[in-house]
Amino acid sequence: MSDFFAGIPAVTYEGPEARSDFAFRHYNPDEMVMGKRMEDQLRFAVAWWHSFAWEGGDPFGGPTFQRPWFGDTLDHARAKADAAFEMFRILNVPFYCFHDADIRPEGASFAETTANLEAMVDYLGQKQEASGKRLLWGTANLFSHRRYMAGAATNPDPDVFAYAAATIKTCMDATHKLGGANYVLWGGREGYETLLNTDLGREREQAGRMLQMVVDYKHKIGFEGTILLEPKPQEPTKHQYDYDVATVFSFLSEFGLQDEVKMNIEQGHAILAGHSFEHELALAREFGILGSIDMNRNDYQSGWDTDQFPNNIPEVALAYYEILRAGGFDTGGTNFDSKLRRQSLDPADLIAAHVAAMDVCAAGLKAAARMLEDGELEQRREDRYAGWRAPSAEAMLNGGKLEDCFAHVMETGLDPQPVSGGQERLEALVARYL
Amino acid sequence: MSDFFAGIPAVTYEGPEARSDFAFRHYNPDEMVMGKRMEDQLRFAVAWWHSFAWEGGDPFGGPTFQRPWFGDTLDHARAKADAAFEMFRILNVPFYCFHDADIRPEGASFAETTANLEAMVDYLGQKQEASGKRLLWGTANLFSHRRYMAGAATNPDPDVFAYAAATIKTCMDATHKLGGANYVLWGGREGYETLLNTDLGREREQAGRMLQMVVDYKHKIGFEGTILLEPKPQEPTKHQYDYDVATVFSFLSEFGLQDEVKMNIEQGHAILAGHSFEHELALAREFGILGSIDMNRNDYQSGWDTDQFPNNIPEVALAYYEILRAGGFDTGGTNFDSKLRRQSLDPADLIAAHVAAMDVCAAGLKAAARMLEDGELEQRREDRYAGWRAPSAEAMLNGGKLEDCFAHVMETGLDPQPVSGGQERLEALVARYL
Amino acid sequence: MSDFFAGIPAVTYEGPEARSDFAFRHYNPDEMVMGKRMEDQLRFAVAWWHSFAWEGGDPFGGPTFQRPWFGDTLDHARAKADAAFEMFRILNVPFYCFHDADIRPEGASFAETTANLEAMVDYLGQKQEASGKRLLWGTANLFSHRRYMAGAATNPDPDVFAYAAATIKTCMDATHKLGGANYVLWGGREGYETLLNTDLGREREQAGRMLQMVVDYKHKIGFEGTILLEPKPQEPTKHQYDYDVATVFSFLSEFGLQDEVKMNIEQGHAILAGHSFEHELALAREFGILGSIDMNRNDYQSGWDTDQFPNNIPEVALAYYEILRAGGFDTGGTNFDSKLRRQSLDPADLIAAHVAAMDVCAAGLKAAARMLEDGELEQRREDRYAGWRAPSAEAMLNGGKLEDCFAHVMETGLDPQPVSGGQERLEALVARYL
Amino acid sequence: MSDFFAGIPAVTYEGPEARSDFAFRHYNPDEMVMGKRMEDQLRFAVAWWHSFAWEGGDPFGGPTFQRPWFGDTLDHARAKADAAFEMFRILNVPFYCFHDADIRPEGASFAETTANLEAMVDYLGQKQEASGKRLLWGTANLFSHRRYMAGAATNPDPDVFAYAAATIKTCMDATHKLGGANYVLWGGREGYETLLNTDLGREREQAGRMLQMVVDYKHKIGFEGTILLEPKPQEPTKHQYDYDVATVFSFLSEFGLQDEVKMNIEQGHAILAGHSFEHELALAREFGILGSIDMNRNDYQSGWDTDQFPNNIPEVALAYYEILRAGGFDTGGTNFDSKLRRQSLDPADLIAAHVAAMDVCAAGLKAAARMLEDGELEQRREDRYAGWRAPSAEAMLNGGKLEDCFAHVMETGLDPQPVSGGQERLEALVARYL
Repeated sequence: MSDFFAGIPAVTYEGPEARSDFAFRHYNPDEMVMGKRMEDQLRFAVAWWHSFAWEGGDPFGGPTFQRPWFGDTLDHARAKADAAFEMFRILNVPFYCFHDADIRPEGASFAETTANLEAMVDYLGQKQEASGKRLLWGTANLFSHRRYMAGAATNPDPDVFAYAAATIKTCMDATHKLGGANYVLWGGREGYETLLNTDLGREREQAGRMLQMVVDYKHKIGFEGTILLEPKPQEPTKHQYDYDVATVFSFLSEFGLQDEVKMNIEQGHAILAGHSFEHELALAREFGILGSIDMNRNDYQSGWDTDQFPNNIPEVALAYYEILRAGGFDTGGTNFDSKLRRQSLDPADLIAAHVAAMDVCAAGLKAAARMLEDGELEQRREDRYAGWRAPSAEAMLNGGKLEDCFAHVMETGLDPQPVSGGQERLEALVARYL
Repeated sequence: MSDFFAGIPAVTYEGPEARSDFAFRHYNPDEMVMGKRMEDQLRFAVAWWHSFAWEGGDPFGGPTFQRPWFGDTLDHARAKADAAFEMFRILNVPFYCFHDADIRPEGASFAETTANLEAMVDYLGQKQEASGKRLLWGTANLFSHRRYMAGAATNPDPDVFAYAAATIKTCMDATHKLGGANYVLWGGREGYETLLNTDLGREREQAGRMLQMVVDYKHKIGFEGTILLEPKPQEPTKHQYDYDVATVFSFLSEFGLQDEVKMNIEQGHAILAGHSFEHELALAREFGILGSIDMNRNDYQSGWDTDQFPNNIPEVALAYYEILRAGGFDTGGTNFDSKLRRQSLDPADLIAAHVAAMDVCAAGLKAAARMLEDGELEQRREDRYAGWRAPSAEAMLNGGKLEDCFAHVMETGLDPQPVSGGQERLEALVARYL
Repeated sequence: MSDFFAGIPAVTYEGPEARSDFAFRHYNPDEMVMGKRMEDQLRFAVAWWHSFAWEGGDPFGGPTFQRPWFGDTLDHARAKADAAFEMFRILNVPFYCFHDADIRPEGASFAETTANLEAMVDYLGQKQEASGKRLLWGTANLFSHRRYMAGAATNPDPDVFAYAAATIKTCMDATHKLGGANYVLWGGREGYETLLNTDLGREREQAGRMLQMVVDYKHKIGFEGTILLEPKPQEPTKHQYDYDVATVFSFLSEFGLQDEVKMNIEQGHAILAGHSFEHELALAREFGILGSIDMNRNDYQSGWDTDQFPNNIPEVALAYYEILRAGGFDTGGTNFDSKLRRQSLDPADLIAAHVAAMDVCAAGLKAAARMLEDGELEQRREDRYAGWRAPSAEAMLNGGKLEDCFAHVMETGLDPQPVSGGQERLEALVARYL
Repeated sequence: MSDFFAGIPAVTYEGPEARSDFAFRHYNPDEMVMGKRMEDQLRFAVAWWHSFAWEGGDPFGGPTFQRPWFGDTLDHARAKADAAFEMFRILNVPFYCFHDADIRPEGASFAETTANLEAMVDYLGQKQEASGKRLLWGTANLFSHRRYMAGAATNPDPDVFAYAAATIKTCMDATHKLGGANYVLWGGREGYETLLNTDLGREREQAGRMLQMVVDYKHKIGFEGTILLEPKPQEPTKHQYDYDVATVFSFLSEFGLQDEVKMNIEQGHAILAGHSFEHELALAREFGILGSIDMNRNDYQSGWDTDQFPNNIPEVALAYYEILRAGGFDTGGTNFDSKLRRQSLDPADLIAAHVAAMDVCAAGLKAAARMLEDGELEQRREDRYAGWRAPSAEAMLNGGKLEDCFAHVMETGLDPQPVSGGQERLEALVARYL
């Protein structure tokens, strides 16, 4: 279909000793991990935007990539799709993800843009059928066009809100038609550049309404996938309302949507918010809103979203550990929201980067599974809180009072002694599974 | 009572041309600002811990200060109190704040510690009566002693929870007895050093229970002050559960306490969480939980809590602007949670630092009041959202649907055009009031 | 010439009470500040790139600005120049700055590009003559085109080095012809994305050679301006070799160029490197390499280069204080390397932003001058080191030995006592001049 | 000698499958790595301060550790040394490091302090002889005592300079007597808290003089070890003069000491300065000043120096790769400047943390050696710059001129095309050796 990747073989598992850039050393789709095929645990997806739409620009330079499909016509869009499905075949990934703007040319009007989208949905539908590839999630790009410069749902102009809502409808329709497993909302410009011109309370209301409309429409059309929100603290905005998992949870709670919406959590966004990836995953799990992940890594010495391919197995293992503790993915998966460095011009770079990242994830998942199955880490965690299983401790949590605690401490002369947290020994324990 | 500040005169308002370190150039307690005396708007408080208890140590060095009241006896504690009230008199501040550990020596047992606290509360009560000074808030230090190394409310050991609860009771009693306007909770170690040994969900439950107990006890004893929680993202912990205003709001919502508890917001903590101070204040105001502030500044080039005295009027003005938009303080106030640099050894440093900080706050407040009274900034903000006053826009917010928006956009060929956000002009406008 | 700013009056000094966005409240060109006209102290320049070439894009969105001069022809370039000089007139700024790529269209070949540059230099020369405006500095854009994606002077491909060198020659010629006061080098991509493919030592040699060639060529053509290097720690690269002033000084020293090259220091770059602006300025002054400044501000909550217009007078005052301590600018000046927020679409935004920034700088300069003329701050600084004027102390610095110090301490039982650093009182002192 | 570690066996290599906290899984001292025994490549040292002197305090809490040797007498100091050497035996580390303040009690006078130091040096000398353990480096603590609050060499008071110089002499004598392989200088307070009271140029001169005195004294006493400087950007100061490797190199160059002094580079300090550890190591290697390392890790989400034990093999491998490229350590080594988390109270924590860290380093070293011996990474790096081997390219570097480059580009119509940097493929290559 596309000869863009000509000469690059389909990538298969060849074992840890393989030396080629086009062989899996760890990712073995049919290998069983905690009762599921590895493919079904990881549920890898390729992101259309970074791999096929991004041109290699950055704030100080223009495009570096020169892809045959760059252009504004439906022919270009189809050529892009051909290359994409060719890459999915080579990589043997089961899923992909897109924004509307990634897959269709912008039209001269909303109607034309919508028609373009529908045409491409048909085309992708055919390619899905031919290939067996599936859509992990679709989403609407409500941040790149200048109409959204001051936000989409949170725009001071209700016409932009309406335009965004209409666009989301088309994207939910597209996702539904393509059998998407989830629908994602990332509010890239739902935030502010300066508080001086911003009505925080009103914008919050607007965002809440839009989310309710998304949930309503999901039910109306019978979309059975999960609605996912993706937190990010900032960039391009100074402040984004979906700062982190805790912030989004407060938002969902306020609007009564905590049972309708889950989180799509990205490593790089966690880092920008001052958290580890595993923190955000664990917190979402505890809130019952862990949905899917955007897998990448953020450079620890850069203060912006670098979206690099993951390359650190110990870090990735801790992330999958939290996911496995949640029972693994349901409708979610591992989307590579990772982009080539802009100097990586070659088709082979695109394949090799994904292959390496898939291997890093596979190795991390396997280590996480060993750690969980072995059980020692969870045992130590449980032991640390063992005192709370005492009836008196449980009683304190269920209706305890300050004055009762006071009386107890006074009467018994209680003088609790600190106990080692054992952090280094736990880290050493984790290292054994890697 | 104390001759520690011998030779330093009582500080009074002398006008902008005053050159002495011991004169107010902006703070004029009786001057009216937005309908209240400046003193009643700002409600300044001195923090006992930094000014009287901190010895000048840092992670790489021991004490630098040599105060006559350093020591572990009640006599030392009374000498400390004498110096404190002498400073309040010199500065003409109406309020002060303390942790239990600041004002009383630790005893050999909980009972002895409590007795020490009660003795000092009596002593402070007498000093309050003699001076007219008041307690803005009291709090319990549940982080310095080694028993709290793994948290207080969130400790894996229920005995520590009980000990902390008992201690809070004594501190609430103390605050109540001294007529405190608020009671504060800062969970310095309510967080974790490593996720590996932490049960996030359980610790959250424990924290929720403790907060409920505090609220219950408040009502039981008839304390009419406000319960305040103070967010901080980290330090000394890797992660603190009370990360920022949004996070705490999600916590309050979860436990149904959003009408019982407000926020005590600190500039330095906002900065550590990746926010501006005014962001945290504005967000708390929108949530209806803006209570009080810890005024200081964090060095922008340092990654830890530097707790410096504020010195930047433009920044402080933006903070008070958000407070005035909320109607000003109710029970809250401006607590100087600011500490001398450890090289500032002299008694005069302690006075001069507070004088300068009070002036910065007064100048900032006056600028904020001018800005609000003039009304142009708020007018521009309102104008920006004017489109939302149209009935069709309001309808969209109240029951709108994606499909209706879609139909509307398709029918009208809606193509919203971006409008300047005018940020630079707004910043220029703000500058005019400074 | 250009009607882009139609309706906006020429901006003049109207005094502190002026309320218009198009009036100076502090900037009064003819007012004397430390023996020079304010205009001659500040030497304001407008940056061509942000004001006329930047289209409002960011990493998550395309252009927002729609300027009549956007396009790839010489006609567009001339229209852009017309608007620029119209703005210089309105603002009454004496200087401007450019990269080659800002003022001329890229050609199909190096020769054509050079011809375009020469044509525009002629055009700008005419406009300079007609307006009296001058060039503060010119520079070559060696980072935007994809040929420079791996650096210019430090590129692994010597052809890129040659191409860059040839381009610099044309830009130095252009600057020379236009009577530029300085020539600047900013090595936006002279650094690396990954150490794995980088030969640090070799790239350093290449950079050294290029700089030597620039200095040689300056002397050859008799350019009497100053060669300036602009430090920046990173972005777009992961690491840039010209990290900060200290790093660049080590580079200049290594290649023996410390008397030939000075620094162009940017506020935002200082912040990204973990320094205050005044630190970088003071350090350059002590090294004798303080040349010029790029005035802007970096958002303290954003981890990338935000290039905002300065709006904080206390901060700007500290910067000018270090400049005035160096005797003020020689060939350098205050270049507004500041860009509109991408939502600030209107021509009036561009004017108003500069007006406000010029006022902030003027107010800061005047405060700095008062502080320096008053002399108290410098007196306190000098007093702090007074002990070093003792002959024994001077002797220690000139040939002292550890063993002599040891003998002295042992013999005298020396036990030096700490003295207050007085930081808060110094900050209070500074506040008095603001 | 000490029963502090009673019950903990001597740790030996048991292979990757070992599960005990007290077994090496990777560290096998006699295994050959690139021509040396692993022990001789890694040259592990234990840091006296963190392991034996630190009491577990942090800025918000007091001591948590309760060690029998805590106290101010020589008996305590000897008990501490007994425990230390017992730990060296258990861990089978060849080296240790100390500050004077770690090993001896402070006396009432300089003379007494010196006598205490000498007594302890004798004691350590005996223990060295009995155990075969060696001193990797000694250093003077010139930052903890309040006399140093404003710096040691850079203090405004020349008496403090003299006192510091005298102290350094005693510490160099101690290090010399104990056969130390290096002598280290870390200027923990050689920097400033505020520029307002600081004479940058003068303080730089003072620091230069002190360093010269150290070098002179080294030669005078015939100390054959290496003088090492340890960069750190800040903390406890706002700014430290020894910011990073590049800054220190500029300092050494200015004072002509670049052949006399090398770098002791710490992971955590690199991170605080905005660099990766491998960057600082590579840069020092290129400057010819790579000496020794302080091995730890800094929490990426914390803005202060966390000094944690290393636990990430991929990161550590990249560090050792740069060291091996430099030919490995000469007099330097791997000092664990790592401290227990303050909740890790147990003797076993101290042992287990070091065991795990030694294993991480050993695994990292072995991976680095495989990578270097295999040669593919270095081959790819060399290939990337192959163009520079052409005579015309070499000529350009040796005396090239801008005008020649210009002529060449014009004549040939040179249009260099970008080539992939291959970052992801290089990262994948690195992963194969891990």
